Amino acid sequence: MRVPFEQLQSEFNRVLLSLDFTEEKAALLAATFAENSRDGVYTHGLNRFPTFVDFVNEGLVKKNAEPLKEYVFGALERWNGNLGPGILNARICMDRAITLAKDHGIGCVAIRNTNHWMRAGAYGWQAADAGVIGICFTNTIANLPPWGGLDPRLGNNPLVMAVPRKNGHVVLDMAVSQYSVGKLNLYKSNQQKLPLPGGYDKDGNLSYDAAEILESQRLLPAGFWKGSGLSLMLDLLATALSQGNSTAKITESEKESNVSQVFICLKADHNEHTAQLVEEIIDYAKSSRPVKEGQSVLYPGENALLTRKKSMEEGVWVDESIWNKVLEM
Amino acid sequence: MRVPFEQLQSEFNRVLLSLDFTEEKAALLAATFAENSRDGVYTHGLNRFPTFVDFVNEGLVKKNAEPLKEYVFGALERWNGNLGPGILNARICMDRAITLAKDHGIGCVAIRNTNHWMRAGAYGWQAADAGVIGICFTNTIANLPPWGGLDPRLGNNPLVMAVPRKNGHVVLDMAVSQYSVGKLNLYKSNQQKLPLPGGYDKDGNLSYDAAEILESQRLLPAGFWKGSGLSLMLDLLATALSQGNSTAKITESEKESNVSQVFICLKADHNEHTAQLVEEIIDYAKSSRPVKEGQSVLYPGENALLTRKKSMEEGVWVDESIWNKVLEM
Repeated sequence: MRVPFEQLQSEFNRVLLSLDFTEEKAALLAATFAENSRDGVYTHGLNRFPTFVDFVNEGLVKKNAEPLKEYVFGALERWNGNLGPGILNARICMDRAITLAKDHGIGCVAIRNTNHWMRAGAYGWQAADAGVIGICFTNTIANLPPWGGLDPRLGNNPLVMAVPRKNGHVVLDMAVSQYSVGKLNLYKSNQQKLPLPGGYDKDGNLSYDAAEILESQRLLPAGFWKGSGLSLMLDLLATALSQGNSTAKITESEKESNVSQVFICLKADHNEHTAQLVEEIIDYAKSSRPVKEGQSVLYPGENALLTRKKSMEEGVWVDESIWNKVLEM
Repeated sequence: MRVPFEQLQSEFNRVLLSLDFTEEKAALLAATFAENSRDGVYTHGLNRFPTFVDFVNEGLVKKNAEPLKEYVFGALERWNGNLGPGILNARICMDRAITLAKDHGIGCVAIRNTNHWMRAGAYGWQAADAGVIGICFTNTIANLPPWGGLDPRLGNNPLVMAVPRKNGHVVLDMAVSQYSVGKLNLYKSNQQKLPLPGGYDKDGNLSYDAAEILESQRLLPAGFWKGSGLSLMLDLLATALSQGNSTAKITESEKESNVSQVFICLKADHNEHTAQLVEEIIDYAKSSRPVKEGQSVLYPGENALLTRKKSMEEGVWVDESIWNKVLEM
C-alpha cells in the first residue's frame, strides 16, 4: 500500500518524540527515514525503523549523545560519535566536510563510535545538494569472506560517490557485496530467487537463495576478488582515519553498533564548464544502445529520482505489516 | 626467461636516452617500467614498453613536456600534463598530493592532458612509501558497456587505494572491469580460457575468450551494475576536478592519449596506534579458513611483494620475444 510522505514522516516523528528525542533530533531522523523510503530505499526507511527503535531501547544507540570533535589537522578532522544515532552523526560530519571543502577545496571528517547511518546515499545527496562532490563510506559487521577464504571477515562496507547536477545529482550508493544485506532481505521476504549468485550456502556452494546466504553470512563480494580487496581497503581507511573500531572489533558483538565512517568532500572550480562536462559524460553513457529494446541506460541516482517523483504523487510504498507495527508504537 | 632487474632497467634507460629523454627523466621512466615488471605487473612493465616508445615516436607522448600547475584552492590543485609521459606526470602529482596531505591532513591533485601512467599501483606504493594513505584513479578510452547498454561508453578506469604498513604496504590496484585489459591480453597471448566470464562476444553473449572480448570492446564491469556505476563516477570525478577530457572525449581518438587523473592523499594521526589497527585488520582477514587447503588469504599488495622478492633473487621474468625486441631497439 501507499501512504502520503507527510504521514510517514509524522508517524516517525511521533514515535521518536515518545522515545524522548528532542524535537530537532526527532524531526531530522523522521525526515531521513521517510526520505529513504520515498526514494525507494525501503530497506533503510520504514523497514529498518523498528530495529532502530529497538536499538535505542536497548541502549546501543544513545539518543542524547552528541558527536564531539577530537582532532583537527588542516582540512582533516576526527570526531567521536559517542554512540549517538548514526543518521544524526553522519549529517553533522557531512555538513562539516562540505564546509571544509568550501574553505580548503577538499576536506575529510572521520568519525568513530557511531552507529548505522541507514541509507548511505543520503549523505551523498546532502553533499551534492550543497554543490560539492561527496565521497563517504562506513565499515560494518563481518558478512563477506575475503577472496580465497571461507569465514566472513570483511564487512560489505557501503561506499557512496556523489556529483552535483542541476537535472538530478549523480549518486552511486553501493555495498561492496554483490547484493546489499537490505536487498537480500527483500528477496528473502518476497521468496524470490536472486538474478545472479549472491553468496554461498553453508556448504560453500554458490547460491541464488537470499535466505541461505543470510544464514551462512557468506555474501559474495562484488567483482569477486575486487570487492573483497575494496572492502578491506575501506575498513583500513575508516579505522585508521577515525582511530575507531574495525570490522574485526565490530564483529565481537553480535549486534552491529559502534562503527567507523569517513566523509570526504571536494569543490570543483569553473561551475559552468564542470556542469557541461558532467552532461557530456551522462549523455555519452546514455547513447549506448539498450540491451532491452525500449529501455535506456540509467545513471546512478536516476532511479531514486524517478521513485521520489512517484512517491510524492501517489504516496510512498510501505510494507503493510511494518507500517501497522509503526502505527501501533 | 629471467633477467637481472638492473639489466632490465639499464636497457630501458639506454633506449630512452636514445630517444632524447633527459638523463633524469630516462632514469625515472626506466626504473618505473622495470619495477612494474619486477612486481609482476608485466603488462605495464616490459610488455608495454614498445608501445610507449611508439607513442613517443608518434608524438602522442611529448617527451620534453613538463606538467604545470593551473589552479590552487587550499589543498586542492589542478595541473596540466601538457601531454608529457604519464609516469612522470603521475609521479609529480602524487608527490604534490603527499606534500599537501602532510601540510593540510588531506590533499588532492587533479591533472588533465596527461598520458597512460602504466601500472596504476605504482603511485599507491609511492604514497605509502611516504607514510600517507593514497588514493588515485584515471579515466581511459571506452571499453565497457554501461549496465543495460550494448555499446562501450565507459572506461575501465583503474582505481588505487594504498595504506602504509611496516611489513608491506596494503595496495589495491584494480581496473573496474572484471579483468583489466592487460590481464585479457595475457590470457589472449597464452591462449588460456578465463576462469570467469570477462565480457561479451560480438553477438552479446557472455564469453570466457579474452580475444573475443578485446575484439568486441565489451568488457564486463566488476560486479556488473556496481562496476558500471563506479566507472561512471570515477570519470565524472577525474573530468570535473581536472577540467580535462572525459572517456567520451578520449574515445574520439583511436589511440588512448590525453587522459584525466586524480591523486588524493590523507595523513592519519597516531602512527603507532594506526599501525596496530592496520595489523588487526590484516590478521583478521587472514584468520578466515582458506577455501583451498594449504593456501592462505592474501591482502592487496601481498602478491606484489612476494613477486618482487623472487624477481630480485632469481631475476625478473620477461617475455623473450618482447625482451629481444627491446634489446634490438
